[in-house]
Amino acid sequence: MALVVQKYGGSSVADAKSVKRVAKRIAEAKRAGNDVVVVVSAMGDTTDDLLDLAAQISPLPPKREMDILLTAGERISMSLLAMATNNLGIKAKSFTGPQAGVITDAAYGKARIVDVVPHRIRRTIEKGQVAIVAGFQGVNKKEDDVTTLGRGGSDTTAVALAAGLDADVCEIFTDVDGVFTADPRIVPTARKIHRVTYEEMLELAASGAKVLALRAVEYARRYGVPLHVRSSFSGAPGTLVSGTYGDLIDPNAPDGDEEEDVMEDPLISGVAHDRSEAKITVTGVPDKPGMAARIFEVVAASGSNIDMIVQNVSAASTGRTDISFTLPEGSGPSALAALRDVKGEVGYDSLEFDDQIGKLSLVGAGMKSHPGVSARLFGAVRDAGINIEMISTSEIRISIVTRADSLDDAVRAVHTAFGLDSLEGEAVVYAGTGR
Amino acid sequence: MALVVQKYGGSSVADAKSVKRVAKRIAEAKRAGNDVVVVVSAMGDTTDDLLDLAAQISPLPPKREMDILLTAGERISMSLLAMATNNLGIKAKSFTGPQAGVITDAAYGKARIVDVVPHRIRRTIEKGQVAIVAGFQGVNKKEDDVTTLGRGGSDTTAVALAAGLDADVCEIFTDVDGVFTADPRIVPTARKIHRVTYEEMLELAASGAKVLALRAVEYARRYGVPLHVRSSFSGAPGTLVSGTYGDLIDPNAPDGDEEEDVMEDPLISGVAHDRSEAKITVTGVPDKPGMAARIFEVVAASGSNIDMIVQNVSAASTGRTDISFTLPEGSGPSALAALRDVKGEVGYDSLEFDDQIGKLSLVGAGMKSHPGVSARLFGAVRDAGINIEMISTSEIRISIVTRADSLDDAVRAVHTAFGLDSLEGEAVVYAGTGR
Repeated sequence: MALVVQKYGGSSVADAKSVKRVAKRIAEAKRAGNDVVVVVSAMGDTTDDLLDLAAQISPLPPKREMDILLTAGERISMSLLAMATNNLGIKAKSFTGPQAGVITDAAYGKARIVDVVPHRIRRTIEKGQVAIVAGFQGVNKKEDDVTTLGRGGSDTTAVALAAGLDADVCEIFTDVDGVFTADPRIVPTARKIHRVTYEEMLELAASGAKVLALRAVEYARRYGVPLHVRSSFSGAPGTLVSGTYGDLIDPNAPDGDEEEDVMEDPLISGVAHDRSEAKITVTGVPDKPGMAARIFEVVAASGSNIDMIVQNVSAASTGRTDISFTLPEGSGPSALAALRDVKGEVGYDSLEFDDQIGKLSLVGAGMKSHPGVSARLFGAVRDAGINIEMISTSEIRISIVTRADSLDDAVRAVHTAFGLDSLEGEAVVYAGTGR
Repeated sequence: MALVVQKYGGSSVADAKSVKRVAKRIAEAKRAGNDVVVVVSAMGDTTDDLLDLAAQISPLPPKREMDILLTAGERISMSLLAMATNNLGIKAKSFTGPQAGVITDAAYGKARIVDVVPHRIRRTIEKGQVAIVAGFQGVNKKEDDVTTLGRGGSDTTAVALAAGLDADVCEIFTDVDGVFTADPRIVPTARKIHRVTYEEMLELAASGAKVLALRAVEYARRYGVPLHVRSSFSGAPGTLVSGTYGDLIDPNAPDGDEEEDVMEDPLISGVAHDRSEAKITVTGVPDKPGMAARIFEVVAASGSNIDMIVQNVSAASTGRTDISFTLPEGSGPSALAALRDVKGEVGYDSLEFDDQIGKLSLVGAGMKSHPGVSARLFGAVRDAGINIEMISTSEIRISIVTRADSLDDAVRAVHTAFGLDSLEGEAVVYAGTGR
């Protein structure tokens, strides 16, 4: 008897009909002999509707009140889902984040989970009932007020509960079939990835793959929670995310299936892309110790997360250099303002802002032991006639920056060069999960 | 400095614009130097929308889940109202029923308040802030689950908080100007009642006046909470409900105003009407001890609340009598079924069901000491050519049953006969408060 935590996103419970379909899946999992805990997001557009209402009321609402407002969304979906499940003859009870023991800090709107004490959930399971928990929310114990977890909140709730309950697997149901070797809207021959390590999934999520929230993967890795990303519209197995390729046994797989896959780490998991960044170049920076540090200090203080950094070799004639870095496009204005404030102090020549860039990332645990990977990547991009503007690497990832309008071609070229194309294109949709 | 509890119904917060208007009223009361606690219902149609959703999901949802679902409505209205109030420069915080310390029993869907421990509300007031509380909800402490209070729940929340906080007045804001001498849709010359005792208000509410929930008036009488029923659309004073005519001082009234009104109890407060009852007649009941008792035992066990009862004088020739009683129309089928089950035991002849009746009630504390009241009432109805089918009386009320299609004429005739018509008809709307 396994303990399964299932998470359903907003698109899986968009209306009464979908709520009933999800209830059927819950009933199937329960009737198959599992203990089942469900985490659910707000229905379809509920959150957007509530945000609209708040915007009509106040331009800058108190964050505490905003969290109280938004948590009404999961309250609706969780109670309806409990009703639908009961209607199928499976006893189910719904619980808010506070009732489920999801304890957070006081950062309303983007709270971090500090502890999970799921006594009521455990008691519910012990009675043979299904516990349905509101995703995206917790409680600030000091004030006894509800909080929301921000982006990726429901995925994180599911993983945190799975860790707190020592669940066998955390199933993330979404509107796609799993994690793909590339975005199938760009690469029609992209294949579903059957297994991937936490590290690779982290790199993919951080590089633009939207199917799983980065923080949920981080949480899963920290507590060793196996994730199964799968479609709420089909019964097919999706993508298994776990510590290493060998340690996760898919309970649904026929015996001996995919044995070859687990014999050796695959070279490459996939090609991610990201169009949400911009590039800032600081030209003519005096080549003195501490100047680069000062620039990034100032940008960090403006609240911007810096991604890639390139510093040119200093021109001997001038003693000056250019420094380029990428950051989320939305952080551009505040970073530029911060840099302008220290122009005199740093003594640079000018600032350039470029939001027409794209980033391609090749991710794979196998590349650690294969020295030819970067050469093959650069070669493929060159053969496609595309210029590389920046490069950064980690142990299991290589990222390059190109012009935004060359990005799709680069992704296709690299996907083909590493033999990731499936023999026949699958008709799949690749999209973000809600929150 | 007074402590004022204000209650706003669903029609007063139907959309963003009305929420802002209510916030202005709250800000005015606060700026006038009062401590302010607000109780708010769900916005406009929210509750109906949630009921519709539930009906699409399950024909018989668990009551616990239904309460979790419905309480999302006040969660939305209370946080939006807190945002709107903050936006006017008045610090305000919203609280759910559980957070406000509204403790109830475990009767989900129609919970009774068993205690009020408003520590957080008191702390909020002490900080000079406005507390905005979700009406209609409380907490079943044993299970730590939210409950709803059922019909009249928000009015009751407001009165209970006013009692628990020892407030100076509980203002019930609604979409009418106060309590009227009759329904102005039937009697265009009906006048607003300035003051009324708890007893009279109880009789009016029990007799069909919908502006205040009966249970809220009962609670107010028990704890001596002065009520002020007034319009959320105008600044005019409404109707004051208190223990006696003398003990309530309207803080908004100019000195010496209406002095004559408080000198003596007015003879009559108003004429209420009710079209929601039906009449059951049990014919040919053997005139033996215990037969009537058995009939009403059976009807009560079927869950029906009996209102008026008439038993004919037994015909000496047959030793049999007819018994008629009224009850809420919706209880008719179950009461009839219960009576059919004991036909053999009781030995009656037949059952008759009549849902075409109307009830008129004349209410006034002054009628205790005025013996001519019933004669004047019956005379007015007779002069209007209307037949009286049943009569029942209390110390301060006389009720009669007529044909449903004669009820409006009867109400107008009685209203005129007791001198209640105003000199000029006021254009007012008289309607039920939400929940």
